[in-house]
Amino acid sequence: MDPEAVAKAFVDHYYRTFDGNRAALGGLYHDASMLTFEGDKIQGAAAIVAKLTSLPFQQCAHAISTVDFQPSGPPGGMLVFVSGSLQLAGESHTLKFSQMFHLMPTPQGSFYVLNDIFRLNYA
Amino acid sequence: MDPEAVAKAFVDHYYRTFDGNRAALGGLYHDASMLTFEGDKIQGAAAIVAKLTSLPFQQCAHAISTVDFQPSGPPGGMLVFVSGSLQLAGESHTLKFSQMFHLMPTPQGSFYVLNDIFRLNYA
Repeated sequence: MDPEAVAKAFVDHYYRTFDGNRAALGGLYHDASMLTFEGDKIQGAAAIVAKLTSLPFQQCAHAISTVDFQPSGPPGGMLVFVSGSLQLAGESHTLKFSQMFHLMPTPQGSFYVLNDIFRLNYA
Repeated sequence: MDPEAVAKAFVDHYYRTFDGNRAALGGLYHDASMLTFEGDKIQGAAAIVAKLTSLPFQQCAHAISTVDFQPSGPPGGMLVFVSGSLQLAGESHTLKFSQMFHLMPTPQGSFYVLNDIFRLNYA
């Protein structure tokens, strides 16, 4: 698969999982993985899932506006930079966000997320 | 220097240079460096400087809102994620942006930018 298809497939999978079954995101992180969520620093798949599943909203829907990517790190590694908006259940307005991922290849030909930084874009 | 101080010093230096003498940013990129600017992909220090100095505005001032960072890549490597706003000369409103850098250590104890992705946050 070409890098653009890989980046888009990852982004599609990540946000579909986030919106549908947030706990299943744990499979995308390893023990060395880091998440910085609105400035909070969390390390390790278990702690990251605990953070993501304890956010103060249950249902949400992400809409993706842009996906940029560049190779970085070991062969097959990739940086992915996403902008989009987040609709929370029961809220009429959406929240704009930006998020970056550093994806690492696995021996199985898949990826895991080594680095993840998320920020809401305050107006 | 601790990583937070390194990240903040880089961000301060980068945007001060951008606002004061954009052509001098060339010293921060290498031939392998990549910039994705609003979806345009550019590689190499010379081409990146040509892009940055040909943007359709001469004077600008960046104001930084948030700086997040995580270690990544070789020892001393770092991901830096910035949000802020950009004021163009003669414009009354500001443009919000998000930008990420993947910084690589140099043998001289400094850094260069291997990866740089920039996006305006459209309202």
